Amino acid sequence: MAMYNLGIVKRNITRADPAAVEKLSRFGVATIHEAMGRTGLMKPCMRPIYSGAQLCGTAVTVLLHPGDNWMMHVAAEQIRDGDVVVAACSADSEDGFFGDLLATSFRARGARGLVIDGGVRDVKDLTAMQFPVFSRAISAKGTIKATLGSVNVPVVCAGAMVNPGDVVVADDDGVVVVPAAMAQQAADAAEAREANEAEKRAKLAAGVLGLDMYRMREALEKAGLKYID
Amino acid sequence: MAMYNLGIVKRNITRADPAAVEKLSRFGVATIHEAMGRTGLMKPCMRPIYSGAQLCGTAVTVLLHPGDNWMMHVAAEQIRDGDVVVAACSADSEDGFFGDLLATSFRARGARGLVIDGGVRDVKDLTAMQFPVFSRAISAKGTIKATLGSVNVPVVCAGAMVNPGDVVVADDDGVVVVPAAMAQQAADAAEAREANEAEKRAKLAAGVLGLDMYRMREALEKAGLKYID
Amino acid sequence: MAMYNLGIVKRNITRADPAAVEKLSRFGVATIHEAMGRTGLMKPCMRPIYSGAQLCGTAVTVLLHPGDNWMMHVAAEQIRDGDVVVAACSADSEDGFFGDLLATSFRARGARGLVIDGGVRDVKDLTAMQFPVFSRAISAKGTIKATLGSVNVPVVCAGAMVNPGDVVVADDDGVVVVPAAMAQQAADAAEAREANEAEKRAKLAAGVLGLDMYRMREALEKAGLKYID
Amino acid sequence: MAMYNLGIVKRNITRADPAAVEKLSRFGVATIHEAMGRTGLMKPCMRPIYSGAQLCGTAVTVLLHPGDNWMMHVAAEQIRDGDVVVAACSADSEDGFFGDLLATSFRARGARGLVIDGGVRDVKDLTAMQFPVFSRAISAKGTIKATLGSVNVPVVCAGAMVNPGDVVVADDDGVVVVPAAMAQQAADAAEAREANEAEKRAKLAAGVLGLDMYRMREALEKAGLKYID
Amino acid sequence: MAMYNLGIVKRNITRADPAAVEKLSRFGVATIHEAMGRTGLMKPCMRPIYSGAQLCGTAVTVLLHPGDNWMMHVAAEQIRDGDVVVAACSADSEDGFFGDLLATSFRARGARGLVIDGGVRDVKDLTAMQFPVFSRAISAKGTIKATLGSVNVPVVCAGAMVNPGDVVVADDDGVVVVPAAMAQQAADAAEAREANEAEKRAKLAAGVLGLDMYRMREALEKAGLKYID
Amino acid sequence: MAMYNLGIVKRNITRADPAAVEKLSRFGVATIHEAMGRTGLMKPCMRPIYSGAQLCGTAVTVLLHPGDNWMMHVAAEQIRDGDVVVAACSADSEDGFFGDLLATSFRARGARGLVIDGGVRDVKDLTAMQFPVFSRAISAKGTIKATLGSVNVPVVCAGAMVNPGDVVVADDDGVVVVPAAMAQQAADAAEAREANEAEKRAKLAAGVLGLDMYRMREALEKAGLKYID
Repeated sequence: MAMYNLGIVKRNITRADPAAVEKLSRFGVATIHEAMGRTGLMKPCMRPIYSGAQLCGTAVTVLLHPGDNWMMHVAAEQIRDGDVVVAACSADSEDGFFGDLLATSFRARGARGLVIDGGVRDVKDLTAMQFPVFSRAISAKGTIKATLGSVNVPVVCAGAMVNPGDVVVADDDGVVVVPAAMAQQAADAAEAREANEAEKRAKLAAGVLGLDMYRMREALEKAGLKYID
Repeated sequence: MAMYNLGIVKRNITRADPAAVEKLSRFGVATIHEAMGRTGLMKPCMRPIYSGAQLCGTAVTVLLHPGDNWMMHVAAEQIRDGDVVVAACSADSEDGFFGDLLATSFRARGARGLVIDGGVRDVKDLTAMQFPVFSRAISAKGTIKATLGSVNVPVVCAGAMVNPGDVVVADDDGVVVVPAAMAQQAADAAEAREANEAEKRAKLAAGVLGLDMYRMREALEKAGLKYID
Repeated sequence: MAMYNLGIVKRNITRADPAAVEKLSRFGVATIHEAMGRTGLMKPCMRPIYSGAQLCGTAVTVLLHPGDNWMMHVAAEQIRDGDVVVAACSADSEDGFFGDLLATSFRARGARGLVIDGGVRDVKDLTAMQFPVFSRAISAKGTIKATLGSVNVPVVCAGAMVNPGDVVVADDDGVVVVPAAMAQQAADAAEAREANEAEKRAKLAAGVLGLDMYRMREALEKAGLKYID
Repeated sequence: MAMYNLGIVKRNITRADPAAVEKLSRFGVATIHEAMGRTGLMKPCMRPIYSGAQLCGTAVTVLLHPGDNWMMHVAAEQIRDGDVVVAACSADSEDGFFGDLLATSFRARGARGLVIDGGVRDVKDLTAMQFPVFSRAISAKGTIKATLGSVNVPVVCAGAMVNPGDVVVADDDGVVVVPAAMAQQAADAAEAREANEAEKRAKLAAGVLGLDMYRMREALEKAGLKYID
Repeated sequence: MAMYNLGIVKRNITRADPAAVEKLSRFGVATIHEAMGRTGLMKPCMRPIYSGAQLCGTAVTVLLHPGDNWMMHVAAEQIRDGDVVVAACSADSEDGFFGDLLATSFRARGARGLVIDGGVRDVKDLTAMQFPVFSRAISAKGTIKATLGSVNVPVVCAGAMVNPGDVVVADDDGVVVVPAAMAQQAADAAEAREANEAEKRAKLAAGVLGLDMYRMREALEKAGLKYID
Repeated sequence: MAMYNLGIVKRNITRADPAAVEKLSRFGVATIHEAMGRTGLMKPCMRPIYSGAQLCGTAVTVLLHPGDNWMMHVAAEQIRDGDVVVAACSADSEDGFFGDLLATSFRARGARGLVIDGGVRDVKDLTAMQFPVFSRAISAKGTIKATLGSVNVPVVCAGAMVNPGDVVVADDDGVVVVPAAMAQQAADAAEAREANEAEKRAKLAAGVLGLDMYRMREALEKAGLKYID
């Protein structure tokens, strides 16, 4: 049924520029998301399996079906150093599609981590490996290998559109997707934003109010804010 | 921040072929979804606001922000006869983005209905108007008009990717999206599938078992199924 | 532990002015909520048990405990003609706290309906009685009569603060609470708002765009909206 | 892996006594659940696909896997007149496991309806057929036929234990399971309970308070209830 | 629309007695909640952003709108040493209303932490700062500054009523609100309760059964409990 | 109401063979669940209250009612060294049924931990005690002691059937139930499975693909997988 992007593995994908990826890896998800005009974020149900997990890399995408992880093995072959596997599912499923064996294989291929709109297992081993995983659930429930999905087709993962080669950045605040063609621009905007924050932080720490620092008082008064005693 | 598809209204979009849209309108969502290889479905949280609501048309897409329906008014101008407005939101929000005034305006522009990954209100009036709406929630909570989203950019709505001009079909079973370029092919496949079902239905009604009609017994035995008494 | 409002029945409460209540009963929940500056709404999980259910009356409040409906019987005695019972629970519980027997009793006392942040049962009978109920769940699960709650103390019901005597209005769009002291003001504001809508509806039906009717074009342009072809 | 009840079809099951089943069919779910000491209820997420749906019959159980409805076809052959199919799933799945073709087959075999801890589709057709279905979700998402589950093994469906041959009763209030061996006893208790309610209803309708009818005043006072003005 | 508590900042609020606040800070949330007759608890969805976070202070309340954190800046000015900011939202929103810059500002003003019925971000930084936050969600999603809410009005936060000046205590078990006027009484009751527990703990550790220590056997037998072999 | 398993305490139960329990304790939940043919798993909402918690023991079952933990005290007396208490509830309830006092008592009786389809509190103390608890929620909300449930009857806990004496194993991946009669068989199967994994892990770490190691290429090609460039 190739017409609808099922049963396909795309081998050659255009990955984001490595320099831009590297630069993006220096910033947090919240900063990048703001730098992108507040776009590209996955839903907040996506959480790290261990505190402090973080990743940044280029997306190898996988489309799975509920309770079936066959395509994860197909995806492994397409991983190059610096990639992050981004797995979507054709319907909601919290089964454990991924565990320490696949993590061992993914890492051997150069993967920097996994983002999956589903469940994973072997959390203790994955934590010991310090293999970063962001998922919607943790579940010991195993999966079968029966139905074709696809690898490296555009997918929707946790509400965000991901194209193969896009940059995916994840930390304790969530997961953000940067389109490959905008990686440099987003990295520059993130840098500018962060440079800007150090000064603000110092002022706020000294007791300056955001009301004054951001000059909000006039706008608030115009909007009708009333102070009463 | 035009680079990330925010603050944009695309006026000229390529709508799916009207004949294909008309043909798709004859089939149910489950049939079309099957005909497409089980792809294109929105999440099952999308429900009609009244029983029996259904719609089929070409997508005018809207990207909203939580609690802000400003872009719905911008979208109204882009509606042509036969369109369905598909509204996505940059973060989960169940507020009532849409009511009977907007429905009156949308209908006057030729809209066949609304699919929104958020909330709507004035359900009694919308039902009286028989204006089909599929939404994730019903809420009287009003919205503001403060932040730019976009119209006719690609959006993710309830987990499905929607491009402007795609065909959107919805009924009691849910909402399915057919890429504009595949509308004719999907309609033909749906037709073939449905033709095929009438005969099956008659056999099953006569007591023939699916086990025999679909010749499943051998595969089940091979898989190891045991009958015990 | 009377100090924390448990184990108390307040007999004399100040109900909202009947004329204001009657006037409020003419308007929908969305209109009243807007007229109140978008305040007072319960969460959208509160749904009517049958389509078309609606109610308007003065609140007799009940504080229940999970799985315990003892205080519903205590509340019955405090009901006067025109009241609506508003039941909150000290922790989330979807058990069936209310059925047709209690509805018979409540109606005999003059109740106009029930709003409950919990579950109800005997839905078929309640529908046959046309006794309006707005609840978070439907469940056949019965309850016990073991723990004291309170009647006519301030409660939080589905996220909204309700004081005894407040006006409660509910329809297909949800449930809104109008503080007793503001009932007349809210009714007047709702009336003004509705009067205003008829004219707008006619214009929109004639094809006038909200963009023009509400003079939004300038603000949108100033915010940076770009039209592209 | 027959040892864990997978890959098994039990052909001979002991169905509850038909007279008891018939008697149970006269009572509502809430009444039966109360008559059973408030046990046997499925979770309130189980809802009828159309208002007014109801069913009563003996359980043919099915254990499914997420996104796989193969065993529904195997179950069809085991259905006898008066049975209700009760389908559980080895992990949460809202896919559409069941539609009008299977309903046609089930009805031809004598089934009185379906209770499924998952999703169904073709809701419009099922409603037209007046084939009662109680499910956790409605979804057009199709399923595959790849993995063995079982038929007529004990299952957990929506939180309730169901053995093949048990009586399953469902209406607008939910779904209750009566163990086969207790069907007569439960039916008698339900009858007694209902007989008792008519008198109560009349009293309550006449304005008698539950406080007096159930003699609650003393217990409330003893528990410390305070009336204040 | 000042009449409904919107667009208002109350500058002078009556904070709970500092000695009572200090005393309350010595006890856990479960103990205080029990000491208050099992009232005052927020819903269990409120979780600390890092394990071990805890706070105790007087409430400065904020009413936000979905996706809009303007009033957080207004609130900062009202914070005094020992305060806890309690933020409610006019409709459910999981956006990231709060991050490390606001935390820096709040701390500079003397805040002991934040309780918010919404989302927060910069979790890594907040953890490094050891700034205690209890929230319903973590999300990198940024917010706008467009709509007036209020500061120091009564709010409903995660199901609990909070008045400015009330004591808010939070730890791993959740968040509890103590009305300002009852702070001393609640602290004394908590102390009494805790004193009582040490002795019980020792007995239980020595193998004494609660059945005997609480003298439950008679009541259980009277209720009909049967022991079988 | 003994007929429906309420109000009963079964004193003599058949516990799984200690040697098999000990052997099962060496394996993770995912391994055991796979070894059992992917059966016996509780729903993934069951989470450890502290990272790294794990337990293995024989089930003493408890049936609770919402907001009532009376039977936990009755259960304490039935605990023997090596047992795990498995608590189910007759309807969903997230109240805090269990805290450090009960944990002290359970441990004194020899309990290895608690699995509860509800809430617990005193999380800080339980963590300090390193008393392993797997629950659906954490809540400071206290419970009453008013209604009879049962001890050592079959229960449904988080979707899994548990009989007294069954082996319960829990770790970061979830909770699995092994029927007492199959404990040895399951332990042997888990051992075989694990032995098998070491070799696979080494191969995958060396860069061998699962595609080759599991010989999947032919099946994928047969299913129609297409590689494109």
